[in-house]
Amino acid sequence: MKHIFSIFFVFILCSINAQNVKSPSNKISLNFKLLENGKPSYSVDYNGKTVIEESSLGIKLKEKKALNSDFEILSTKTSEFNESWKPVLGEKSSILNHYNELTVALVQKETKVKMNIIFRVFDEGIGFRYDFPKQENLNYFIISDEETQFNLTEDYKAFWIPGDFDSNEYAYNETKLSEVDNTKLDLNNGIGVKSIPGKYAVQSPLMMKSSTGLYVNIFEAAVVNYPVMHLNVDGSKFKLTSVLVPNAIGDKAYLQAPCVSPWRTIMISNDARDVVGSHMILNLNEPCKLDDVSYIKPMKYIGIWWEMHVGVSTWDYTGSQVAQNVLTQSLAPTGKHGATTENTKKYIDFAAKNGFDGVLVEGWNVGWEDWNGNWKEEVFDFTTPYPDFDIKAISAYAKEKNVKMIMHHETSGSVGNYERHLDRAFDLMKKYDYPAVKTGYVGKIIPRGEFHDGQAMVNHFNFVAKRAADYKLMLNSHESSRPTGYSRTYPNYIAAEAARGNEFSGWSIGNPPSHETILPFTRLLGGPMDYTPGIFEIKMSYYDKNKKEQVHTTLAKQLALYVTMYSPLQMAADLPENYEKRMDAFQFIKDVAVDWDDTKILEAEPGDYLTIARKTKGKETWFLGAITDENYRKTTIVLDFLTKGQKYKAIIYEDAKDADWKKNPMAYKIRTVEVNNKSKLNLVLAPGGGTAISFEPIK
Amino acid sequence: MKHIFSIFFVFILCSINAQNVKSPSNKISLNFKLLENGKPSYSVDYNGKTVIEESSLGIKLKEKKALNSDFEILSTKTSEFNESWKPVLGEKSSILNHYNELTVALVQKETKVKMNIIFRVFDEGIGFRYDFPKQENLNYFIISDEETQFNLTEDYKAFWIPGDFDSNEYAYNETKLSEVDNTKLDLNNGIGVKSIPGKYAVQSPLMMKSSTGLYVNIFEAAVVNYPVMHLNVDGSKFKLTSVLVPNAIGDKAYLQAPCVSPWRTIMISNDARDVVGSHMILNLNEPCKLDDVSYIKPMKYIGIWWEMHVGVSTWDYTGSQVAQNVLTQSLAPTGKHGATTENTKKYIDFAAKNGFDGVLVEGWNVGWEDWNGNWKEEVFDFTTPYPDFDIKAISAYAKEKNVKMIMHHETSGSVGNYERHLDRAFDLMKKYDYPAVKTGYVGKIIPRGEFHDGQAMVNHFNFVAKRAADYKLMLNSHESSRPTGYSRTYPNYIAAEAARGNEFSGWSIGNPPSHETILPFTRLLGGPMDYTPGIFEIKMSYYDKNKKEQVHTTLAKQLALYVTMYSPLQMAADLPENYEKRMDAFQFIKDVAVDWDDTKILEAEPGDYLTIARKTKGKETWFLGAITDENYRKTTIVLDFLTKGQKYKAIIYEDAKDADWKKNPMAYKIRTVEVNNKSKLNLVLAPGGGTAISFEPIK
Repeated sequence: MKHIFSIFFVFILCSINAQNVKSPSNKISLNFKLLENGKPSYSVDYNGKTVIEESSLGIKLKEKKALNSDFEILSTKTSEFNESWKPVLGEKSSILNHYNELTVALVQKETKVKMNIIFRVFDEGIGFRYDFPKQENLNYFIISDEETQFNLTEDYKAFWIPGDFDSNEYAYNETKLSEVDNTKLDLNNGIGVKSIPGKYAVQSPLMMKSSTGLYVNIFEAAVVNYPVMHLNVDGSKFKLTSVLVPNAIGDKAYLQAPCVSPWRTIMISNDARDVVGSHMILNLNEPCKLDDVSYIKPMKYIGIWWEMHVGVSTWDYTGSQVAQNVLTQSLAPTGKHGATTENTKKYIDFAAKNGFDGVLVEGWNVGWEDWNGNWKEEVFDFTTPYPDFDIKAISAYAKEKNVKMIMHHETSGSVGNYERHLDRAFDLMKKYDYPAVKTGYVGKIIPRGEFHDGQAMVNHFNFVAKRAADYKLMLNSHESSRPTGYSRTYPNYIAAEAARGNEFSGWSIGNPPSHETILPFTRLLGGPMDYTPGIFEIKMSYYDKNKKEQVHTTLAKQLALYVTMYSPLQMAADLPENYEKRMDAFQFIKDVAVDWDDTKILEAEPGDYLTIARKTKGKETWFLGAITDENYRKTTIVLDFLTKGQKYKAIIYEDAKDADWKKNPMAYKIRTVEVNNKSKLNLVLAPGGGTAISFEPIK
Repeated sequence: MKHIFSIFFVFILCSINAQNVKSPSNKISLNFKLLENGKPSYSVDYNGKTVIEESSLGIKLKEKKALNSDFEILSTKTSEFNESWKPVLGEKSSILNHYNELTVALVQKETKVKMNIIFRVFDEGIGFRYDFPKQENLNYFIISDEETQFNLTEDYKAFWIPGDFDSNEYAYNETKLSEVDNTKLDLNNGIGVKSIPGKYAVQSPLMMKSSTGLYVNIFEAAVVNYPVMHLNVDGSKFKLTSVLVPNAIGDKAYLQAPCVSPWRTIMISNDARDVVGSHMILNLNEPCKLDDVSYIKPMKYIGIWWEMHVGVSTWDYTGSQVAQNVLTQSLAPTGKHGATTENTKKYIDFAAKNGFDGVLVEGWNVGWEDWNGNWKEEVFDFTTPYPDFDIKAISAYAKEKNVKMIMHHETSGSVGNYERHLDRAFDLMKKYDYPAVKTGYVGKIIPRGEFHDGQAMVNHFNFVAKRAADYKLMLNSHESSRPTGYSRTYPNYIAAEAARGNEFSGWSIGNPPSHETILPFTRLLGGPMDYTPGIFEIKMSYYDKNKKEQVHTTLAKQLALYVTMYSPLQMAADLPENYEKRMDAFQFIKDVAVDWDDTKILEAEPGDYLTIARKTKGKETWFLGAITDENYRKTTIVLDFLTKGQKYKAIIYEDAKDADWKKNPMAYKIRTVEVNNKSKLNLVLAPGGGTAISFEPIK
């Protein structure tokens, strides 16, 4: 690990009210300026061209003078940081963190309150944060608003989902900024709880593309003890402004100096691959805080889960799948309960036979008869199994088969109740040797009035990660606020859903074919996503001929997602019986790695296509995933990423000639070729299709 | 235990829209009537005279038609209940629960929603509640308001404290109802967090007296999963209306049928002793839900506590007593920390020597340097002792001396944080053999926007009691919502402060001499109060000659409080060194019992005086306490409560001739006389004074 930290110059400024810092390669240039009224502002150039025009910075405080004007510069400081660090699990075994930093120390003339703004300029973009040092004039304070502007220069095309304080489970809209309008959206999309703050609010990360092919992404990093930032779009002036998620009484954040805001980030490149391949968000987070990371291991898993989504079985013991207490509901079991001892053993057998690490079981604990939709406080206790789930016997059986059980904690949004039971729940996991937990937050939050994305909930998600680390447990949160790189700091926070996952395909309008080509430019920048790919029975009419729902991809694309959608925790989401019918295709899921030495972004265009190759951690095997949107696609891949002089057997899992996500999604073919790093491969992707390739070195 | 339950008659009513039920002795008569618009109403007569005029009943719902009109009667049912039950700890070994019950089953014509109103008529008053049965037309619902009226017939004198969603720690005002006006109060009273909802809001229990000497008390019982009820006073019409405490977003209660409201209670008597001696509130609560009550034991205790209140030592390790993070605060210990191992051992020695059961230690755990006044979320972890508090050694020492340690958990109002740590905190208590915990809620509540008296906090206090019972621990809550008899159901919830306690005497305007003559008519109706009597050094100038604060009683009255202020958990609150100077007076505190076979209310007048005699549980000894307000008082007590034919040695601890709470509070004398049940004793109480007597049988 190399570590260079050098301070170039420190000086006290009186008359100079502007300051500049460039990225290591000089591509990106950041300009800070104090405007006439003492208002801080910044602008950003890329290759000499303005990308972010003069944009003001500031924080509004409750019952205190706003920190958005009347400032003077106390000092500025620039420095370079250049370090590589090794993630516990990741897309690469070593990640370069190289930036130039500018710290502008400000003081507000009237109040004498000190506030610093820290800029870090990387080659792929910038990050900046507000920093409140320990001082006489500011101790406790409440943020009532953040006034951070991102003023663009033109009407970018944007991949956006509506600002929503409670859900990030939307499919993306692809429009000009000037066309953002939440009132025009069809909200019949399967999302249970929505809290859209306004007509022009969108979520970050916001991926955009200019008319000249410049890619710009606005996001944030290290959201800790602070609410999530959404963005308000002024479509006529192409100005974006921060929208912080409020708490129950309208406040945004409760802070005590010394403290910092999250990093506000802007990635800029004329090559979309730089955005997908960036580790800037992780780099802006604190290094790992755990002493012991030995228990943090990648996992490929199956689970009693999709069968509930498709209606084969139920979460609840009584088999009603109503999820809300109703008078007519019988309390007698109907035999449709999924999480039975017998069924779980079947999954354990399948996992053991096919080399999976874990088995997730949902619906194992009492409470599912009346858990959703009624803002109910006491739902689950997280420790009481249903009578047909023999946790002791299951735990023993899994141990015998060398399979790990994954616990499930659905909170139904009743967060106070979960926290009350957390120690007991984790104790139970340790008792029965569950190494990982999947949490869920379906429903309106309790404490009532709080939102999924508010400061209190951000603190909750991070608290659960820390508490899990106390027990040496791994965490995978669903319906949480989207990650912003915190898995660098708490690598036991192994994955999250926190976006529209594959599950929506089972019972809603689903995810359009472009969906998975956008997520790596947005959601995945913050950390691994538990997308739950691997659905082989694409059409839900398989289960019920009246069903119109389906996965909007081909089967081959489901395989490719294991490579394009990075996560060290990957599910083979379909039913074992569906895999058993297609063991040749299933072989790719069995083979594919989930932790990597290296990652190459070969092709990338948000909303259109993505091709990624990754090298298995500690092995010479490579895997490639290529996906497309609703359009047919031909491409040629140069395999120069492979080790020079090494021959590989490439097993290519691809769409059959007549495959099509809608008309013929399950048509695939498998071929094997011998390749080396000088080979080229022609790939043909069906509409909504994909290609998955494993490269095995030939000895 | 006798148990009579008989149903008199059940009938379906069409034309009859009124119903009457009387108390067992016929003194009190309750009339239910459905008014013309289908609005439920009731009225109450006492000895044939109307006390509560036609008062309407109803509940407003969020997003649903209000349940306050359009009703018709489905059926009515009356029954008698007559049972005696044995409290685990109490004022009597057996409590009679005798009432006639009327259930009016209503249905709302438009919505078909069913709601029952259940009335219980006792000889000392009535209770009624709203009952929502399981039904097709009402499952989950949100109460936006309760419209229960208590329409009095005249301008009663009231003993009132302002309605306040966050504090019940007020001294009482004694005015006509028409003179209630919160804007005229001096609020410089030492209360940290106040949330007064309006000019005319008062708290219940509200004790009142009519011009003709009728005593009326309005309160509630069994507040479970519901907010606290305050009262709004219409002073011109003498009408009181329920005011429920809202949550962060203005809702009052989240309920699911079947469910019930708390009981709304009205006690009526022309003898004030009937109010003080009533067990109606306990009777209206559910019987004990604990299987094992063997660990629930009365305790007399001392503690490292008053020395912090008077400034001799500090809660915080660094000795600043600032309680808020400030830059100038040194982090080095100053030697003023109270909760040291050495000091704790001194208290253990004193407890052991003088026969006390327990020692409370506050300030033992880290966090006190910055805990109060800033709505701070993460303050205490409840498990980390300060470096000078050797919990292991202290626990061993206490065990050796046969003294129990009492844990202290100050939450600073950060309730979510406390719940997160509760299991760990209780684990620590079990590890070190602490049988009881004193909790504290000084500060604004977190989750932010919630109030101390809202449904969420009511649920919290009850949750802590239940969780404590899981661990077989006793609970004593301070700054909680005031109890409403829940200690019958969870008798491990042994005591609460939840009113203005003796502590205010140390550092505020304190409690006026009448204070302790009112509390038994108000706060104590709901359950035992940890008032912390026994202050011998009455004037704070003892500690600092500049201090003007003082306890507003004589020393003898402090002794009498051990009898008049019922609690099975009683503190000898002063410093051991102050007791050591007056061991003769201290003897009463050493002798006095805290759990009783019988209680006799001998004299009672709210705001003026109170004389109570109690017989020790399982023993022939009796204790008597007599207190007065600011006025000198002479009285003659007939000792006919003593066992016939038994001689007793009566040790009388009384005010010295020239004693006076202000001028000469510490002048007392002790005399011994021989008495029997035909004896009379002349008692002379100084202004702000009292008399305490122990009766020991002579063999």
